[in-house]
Formats: sequence, structure tokens, C-alpha cells
Amino acid sequence: MAYKVDLNGDLGESFGAWKMGQDTDVLTFVSSANVACGFHAGDPLVMQKTVREAIKAGVAIGAHTAYPDLKGFGRRNMICSPDELYTDTLYQIGALRAFCEAAGTKLQHVKPHGAMYNSAAKKIEEAMALAQAVKDAGGNLILMGLAGSKFDEAAEKLGLPYAAEAFADRGYMNDGTLVPRKMEGAFVHDVEVAAQRVIRMIKEGVVEAIDGSIVPLKPQSICLHGDSPSAVQMAQTLRKRLIEAGIEIEPLSKII
Amino acid sequence: MAYKVDLNGDLGESFGAWKMGQDTDVLTFVSSANVACGFHAGDPLVMQKTVREAIKAGVAIGAHTAYPDLKGFGRRNMICSPDELYTDTLYQIGALRAFCEAAGTKLQHVKPHGAMYNSAAKKIEEAMALAQAVKDAGGNLILMGLAGSKFDEAAEKLGLPYAAEAFADRGYMNDGTLVPRKMEGAFVHDVEVAAQRVIRMIKEGVVEAIDGSIVPLKPQSICLHGDSPSAVQMAQTLRKRLIEAGIEIEPLSKII
Amino acid sequence: MAYKVDLNGDLGESFGAWKMGQDTDVLTFVSSANVACGFHAGDPLVMQKTVREAIKAGVAIGAHTAYPDLKGFGRRNMICSPDELYTDTLYQIGALRAFCEAAGTKLQHVKPHGAMYNSAAKKIEEAMALAQAVKDAGGNLILMGLAGSKFDEAAEKLGLPYAAEAFADRGYMNDGTLVPRKMEGAFVHDVEVAAQRVIRMIKEGVVEAIDGSIVPLKPQSICLHGDSPSAVQMAQTLRKRLIEAGIEIEPLSKII
Amino acid sequence: MAYKVDLNGDLGESFGAWKMGQDTDVLTFVSSANVACGFHAGDPLVMQKTVREAIKAGVAIGAHTAYPDLKGFGRRNMICSPDELYTDTLYQIGALRAFCEAAGTKLQHVKPHGAMYNSAAKKIEEAMALAQAVKDAGGNLILMGLAGSKFDEAAEKLGLPYAAEAFADRGYMNDGTLVPRKMEGAFVHDVEVAAQRVIRMIKEGVVEAIDGSIVPLKPQSICLHGDSPSAVQMAQTLRKRLIEAGIEIEPLSKII
Repeated sequence: MAYKVDLNGDLGESFGAWKMGQDTDVLTFVSSANVACGFHAGDPLVMQKTVREAIKAGVAIGAHTAYPDLKGFGRRNMICSPDELYTDTLYQIGALRAFCEAAGTKLQHVKPHGAMYNSAAKKIEEAMALAQAVKDAGGNLILMGLAGSKFDEAAEKLGLPYAAEAFADRGYMNDGTLVPRKMEGAFVHDVEVAAQRVIRMIKEGVVEAIDGSIVPLKPQSICLHGDSPSAVQMAQTLRKRLIEAGIEIEPLSKII
Repeated sequence: MAYKVDLNGDLGESFGAWKMGQDTDVLTFVSSANVACGFHAGDPLVMQKTVREAIKAGVAIGAHTAYPDLKGFGRRNMICSPDELYTDTLYQIGALRAFCEAAGTKLQHVKPHGAMYNSAAKKIEEAMALAQAVKDAGGNLILMGLAGSKFDEAAEKLGLPYAAEAFADRGYMNDGTLVPRKMEGAFVHDVEVAAQRVIRMIKEGVVEAIDGSIVPLKPQSICLHGDSPSAVQMAQTLRKRLIEAGIEIEPLSKII
Repeated sequence: MAYKVDLNGDLGESFGAWKMGQDTDVLTFVSSANVACGFHAGDPLVMQKTVREAIKAGVAIGAHTAYPDLKGFGRRNMICSPDELYTDTLYQIGALRAFCEAAGTKLQHVKPHGAMYNSAAKKIEEAMALAQAVKDAGGNLILMGLAGSKFDEAAEKLGLPYAAEAFADRGYMNDGTLVPRKMEGAFVHDVEVAAQRVIRMIKEGVVEAIDGSIVPLKPQSICLHGDSPSAVQMAQTLRKRLIEAGIEIEPLSKII
Repeated sequence: MAYKVDLNGDLGESFGAWKMGQDTDVLTFVSSANVACGFHAGDPLVMQKTVREAIKAGVAIGAHTAYPDLKGFGRRNMICSPDELYTDTLYQIGALRAFCEAAGTKLQHVKPHGAMYNSAAKKIEEAMALAQAVKDAGGNLILMGLAGSKFDEAAEKLGLPYAAEAFADRGYMNDGTLVPRKMEGAFVHDVEVAAQRVIRMIKEGVVEAIDGSIVPLKPQSICLHGDSPSAVQMAQTLRKRLIEAGIEIEPLSKII
């Protein structure tokens, strides 16, 4: 049996006259793109352009849903009610899906962004609100969330197609959670080490935690960054190593 | 053959903590509702609630698309490029449609709001941009526009399902355009007169202009207001008179 | 020596086409008004109108500063950095002050609104950021905050003119904090009881806590509401009782 | 008598996570900076940082006031009422002034941005609304507007300190207006030619129009751009040529 994994990255984060991101580069290494929907970044013109470019590059499209916080880029925690989370998510999914369908493609997945992602990963009622919106949006959308988090639980409860994601450049605690950003071991800087870790996750379903213990981690998608030239190069090298190790890079819809 | 017409009104114009409109009343007299999509009014919570109430009342739902101008309620003219008009429209259609589909109904039509409506009624390149967005959104959406305006022309060029709308409470010039708001004869205040005029539009396809001439006007939908107790009463009386005259009130999807 | 107290209420919470509040009524019972500055409510047109009406009514004006969250009316907690709190506050103070000065009056005070108020009342670094902005804005502005909270502490550290506020319609714990809204005893519904409690706060500097103990509470301002006809009536009765008890109602600038 | 002129450029056009402009470079060649106030660009954090950097560089600060249109960067024409223009301007002036005063400096001038500038240059009622706001804001603020436009007229009517600005890189019609962007002769690409034209404006008070005629043009400020490396270099060369020609570069407050 062939090993498969999806590589995901963020796209379409420009807004109005402001440019952000290296979208052309990101499209060279991902199989699925998370496209901003106008709440933390992106606007209708940017969304149209981004969807068209992703299609041209053969990359699957997901909605990168966020808190309504342009000024904070969706990175500031906001205490939203489950109803607010549900309706904000449905709204953003619908908006992006219109651009996908007008361009002749299907929306593949939904990945909450930034503070909304981090908060729901820990709070089941938030993860459930987001998952329910993804389910109610129809179209067999795949929810993408942090492996080992409340997202797993919410998707399972709702019988929702689900992709657990892992981070190539982050360390893990022995309970499978990420090493907090301020702790030593939070980041894996060596791309070859990162590649070996990801290959192990995919082939063996485990990762070595910072205390040396081996913990289960079986992601369907790996999150890559393209926000700097070095990030782009790291992502491209990592992609190459996975392929060399016999792992096929496929969009989520061919894996889940 | 039975005479039929659609009655449309605006819905879901609250925003956040601010309430607006008499939605419960409007739902008693319209067959199609124009629901705000968050650009000039409405927000995701309001949209969800509005869609559910419309479904419960058996009223068909349309997207009331607008310029991105909350503070000006979409009533200030903004010079937008055709690309901006197209993508803003697609975005809003998608957002509202997600709430319709999650609630088990279909989005029926799209009616541009306020300054966007008035501007496109006179400029063919704007009407074409809006009509193209409605077409590309798929789902056999009906465009609603001012009878005798550039909307008619754009819909015809694109082969788009189209509903021309007329106003029960407005006077008409002898070229079929509305009497400007500041001119004498701009408004028809007597509800019985208004009812007779609408009945004539529907049965004979004409209206008497302010100069006494008889001009062609064959609307598929009549725009009614619900923004004050007297407007609600006028709308309810008008609806009653149409029914008494043997005209069936049906949503657009059963007429076009 | 005469007893004095300020009565404060919220004003100018309309936005664009949406109306909110009973500003005309509120101006009949307050001596100081907290005017929204466009972040949670209000807009430049509303601010101008509100400032003019307050001046006409002889009511002193304060800036009701808030998180940038129109859709949530500033009631949703947002985790902002001290720099964000400081600069958002300075911005809003400046904006409102321009309307005050153009209308020939001075901005008197600053009262953080909603979630920003509640959060800073408990977190000294947030209270310090807000207090520093009030100080750096110049003009001898008075900070208004919850009596017994981190606001007291921040104002004292910075040597800032400060008004501690108390609530006529709320119960207090024996440590001087408010009884949480969901606990029994959170609200004082009887206006006569409320009046007696406020009179005692002002004359004796104490309040009876829900466990019957007597705790120190010496406010310079009492927060009143005007968001419903019954709230308006309660506020007017309370004002009357204070005056009957020999307490003078004066704006903060004549008390601090 | 010494010849003097102000050189102005735009600053502080970043927003949230999005960066824009070459502020460090612009500060090397301007004597007055137009700082975005949050309506078309800028946010409170950016405004604070920009004001501090301008002060450090010894550059005078003005408010770059705009339509409320972040997504369109204030470049889309919006039909606003005089009251809206007046209050939007007052709001933005106040907000920026708070940052100036907190940093120990004075706000020097106000320059409307983009579409608001272009529209008011042609419509006296708009120019009057903007000028009145600048006057009512107090503090002896200088209005900056297009030389030969309705701004001149509005400032004169109100007795407002006024700086007419000219463009080094633009051609002029024989009535003193700018050559429209799409016409031949709209731009002056050669920096040495541009420098000679500016020197002539300042020393002789005239410019050669595209038809060869000599028309009066006596600017107090020259608008320079810093939005690309070549624009920065052109601006620096031009500044050098002015100084070589014996013209002193001074902020507006030392000229008007």
C-alpha cells in the first residue's frame, strides 16, 4: 500500500492595496491551499484571483475561516459564542465556495485560522460549533484541525470527514500537544530533521516527543509555511524528501 | 390564464446589537424577501435568523447585495470597477446561499440594493457585471432589477432568468422611468390608487405616466416597504386588493 | 460640607442608519455622559450630534472607549496587547475630543466600555495601559473605573485624576466586588432600596454586601442606565431621592 | 529674500499585519509628512510608530484624511454629504492629533487623500466642508490642497492658513489644472526636467503648460512619492537640485 499525505499552506492573504505572502511559491509545494475569506485577510477580488491561480496550479482549495478581525489578522483571541462561531464559519465557507463554483471547482476543506483554531483546539464546544457549520454547509467538506485536539473529537461525534494536521517545524510534548512557542524545543529548525520526523509520522504513525518518548501522531496533512524565502525553501526541500521516501503528495480529497 | 405577480420586500437589516425593520410584518405580505448580506446591513447571526423566519413563513429568499458601506447603509454612491462589482456580488450571494442551504432551502433571486441598484440601472457595464455574477453563481438564480432599465438589457444579453420590478407607490415618466423623488408626482400616496395602478400593470402591461400618456410596464415583481406602521398597512391593503382582483401572489420562481 | 456625586450614563450609541438608546431621556438624569467613539458604536455624524446635545443639556462629556468590535458592540472579550489598548484608547480620545473642542467644550473623562472595562478591572497591565493613554492624552482627563478594581490602582500609580464608580442596581460581595450576574443577589430591583444604598455609599462610604457585612465603597460616580423606559424611570427616581437626601449632583470635574 | 518650499510625502500607510511604503526613505526627503488616520490606511499602532519616527527625523506631521474605505484605499469615489465630509475629517484630525500631542509635537496640516482630494478639488461645497473641519479643529492647522483648485477658494473664504501644492512629475494644462492621467504629457519622467520646472514654479511662480504657454503656479509645497525605489531616488535628486538652486526646504509651518 502506498503512503500518502497532503501538504497544506496559506494563500490569498492580501487585502485591498496591501500585498502579503508568496502565493506563487506556495503553489509549488502544497497540494491543498487554505484561502482567506475576508474576515482576517483577503477580499472578494483577492479571493477570485487566488482561486483561479490555485486551480491553474492543480492545488485543492479550502476555506481559511477566522474571527472578524482584520486589524489583528485573526490572531487575537476573541470570546465568541458557539452561535457566532457557527454563523461566521458558514458565512465564510459560502463566500469562498461561490468563487470556487464560478471557476468550475469544488471547495475541498475548511481550516480555522489563527486564534480561532488555537481556541477551538482546546474547547470542545467551540470545536463542535465549527464542525457543525462545516457539516451543515454540505458538499462533503473536510474539516482540518490539529491532530490530537478537540477537533478530532468534534469531527468524530458528527461523522464529519476529517484531516488531522501536524507541523513539520514544531516539537511535540509527550501527550501529543505542541511544545509551547516560548519553551525550548518548540521549533525544529533543521529541514532534514524535520523531513525525517514527518516521514516517520506518515509511515509509523508516531513522533519523538521532546522528552525522548515515542508518541502516536498520524496526520493526513502537514502544514507548511511560505511567508519568507527560507520558509519556501524549507517547504520545497521537505516535499522533495517525502517524495524520495516513497510518499505520494495528494490533496485531502484523495486521502480522506 | 391566471394573472400572477410576486411581492418583494427587504428583510434582515439589523446589525449586531442594532435592530431595524419590521421583519415579522414584512413576512405577512411578501412572497419574496431581499435579505441583507453583511455589506450594507445584516451579519451572520442575523442572516441565519432571517433565513429561518422566511422559510417558516413560506417566503422565498433573495440576496440583497450592496456596496461595502455599513456606515452609509449602501446608500452612498461608490464608483466601483466592474471587477469589484462582480466579486462583491459573488461573495454576498455565496454567503447568504450557505445559510439557505444549511436551512434546507434554495436561494431564489438576487436584488442589488440602494446606490448599487440605482447606479447599475443606468450604466450597462455595471448592470452587466452584476448580471454576470448572478449567472456565474449558478443555481438558476433570478436577477431582479428596475423594469425598463439597463438590468433588463443585461439579463437579456446573458440569457439570465430575470424579474423586472415596479413600484406601487411611485409615479412614472412617459419613457417608463421613475419620476425623480424631488419632482411633483414622484409618489402615489393613496393606497387604492396605487392598487389600481398595479392591477393595470399586471393585467394590461401598462401604467399611466404623469403626463397622462399610457406607457408599457409589465413587472414580474412589485416592491413593497415595511419600514413603518403605515407602510406595513399600505402593503397589506395592496396585497388584498390584488387578490380581490384575481391576481395570484407567487414567489418569482413560480412566475419566471 | 456638602455631599456630592456624579451620575453617569451612556450616550451616542447609534451607528449609521441604526438608532439606539434614549439619549434625550438620559440627558435628563446624568451629570456626565459616556459617548461612544466609533469602535463599538457611534460614528462621526452621531458623535457630533451627541456632543452638541450634551452641551445643550449642560452635561459633561467623556469618551466611552472600546475594543474595535462593532458587530459585537464591544461586549466580546478580545485579548489585546497593552500597546493595542494604549493606542486604541488614545485614538478614540482624540477623535471625540475634536468634536468637543469644535463645539467649544472640554472633554472631561474617559470610561472604558464593556469587555474592555471588565477585563482591565481585573488585570493591572491592562488597567495601566488604559490609564497611561488617558494621562498621555493630556488635558487633565479623569479616568473612570470600577471602584475597588485595578483601575483604582493604575490611576494611583500614575497620579491620574480618577473617579471610582459604583452601580445602584447591583449587589456587592464582601470583598467589594460585584455579585456575578448569574448569582442570586446580583441585582437590586427595588428603586427605593437602590436609592438608600447609594445614599449610604455617598454619606457613609460603605455598602451592605450580600452576606450582610458592611464593606467600604466610596464612589465619585454612580452608573445609571437608560436603555428602556423602566430604566429611565428608575434613574429619574434615584436622582430625585439623592437630591432629597441633600446630595448635590455635579459632573466629575467639580468633584475630583 | 530667500526662496522656500515644503516637500510633502505620504507616510504610515501600513495596516495591521500588512506593510506598505518606504517610510524610512520618505523621511529622508520630505519636510512635511501626510500620515494616514485609519480610514484608508493606518491603524492606531501604525499611527503611534509613524508619529514617533517623523519627530525623530525632524519632519512635520499632517493628517492624511480620507473616505472610510480601507478595501479601496480611499481611491474610490464616494458621494458623501458635506456633513459626512466635515465630521469624517474632524474625527481623523482628532485621532492623529492625540498621537502628536502624546509624543510632544503639534499637528501641522491636513491634506485630504485620494478620491476625497480629487473630488473636493472640483466641488466647492466639498472643499468648504473639509476646510471648515480644519478650521473648527483649531490649533491653527494648515489646509493643503491642489494649487488652482476649489481648495484655494475655500481656504480664502474661511481665512484659513493654506498651502497650495504642485506636482513635480505631472504636466499642466493651460488653465493650471493637471493633464489627465490618460493624456499624453500627463507625466514628467525626467527628474532633471522636473527639477527645473519646480525651481521655476518657486522662483517665478509659473509653469510651462503642455501647449507651451506659461501659466501662473505658485506652490508652497511639492508632492513627492516614495512608493518605489525609483520614486525615492527621483525625490532625493529633486530635493538636491532645489537646494543647489538656493531654495530652502522647510516645513509648511515656517512658510505659511
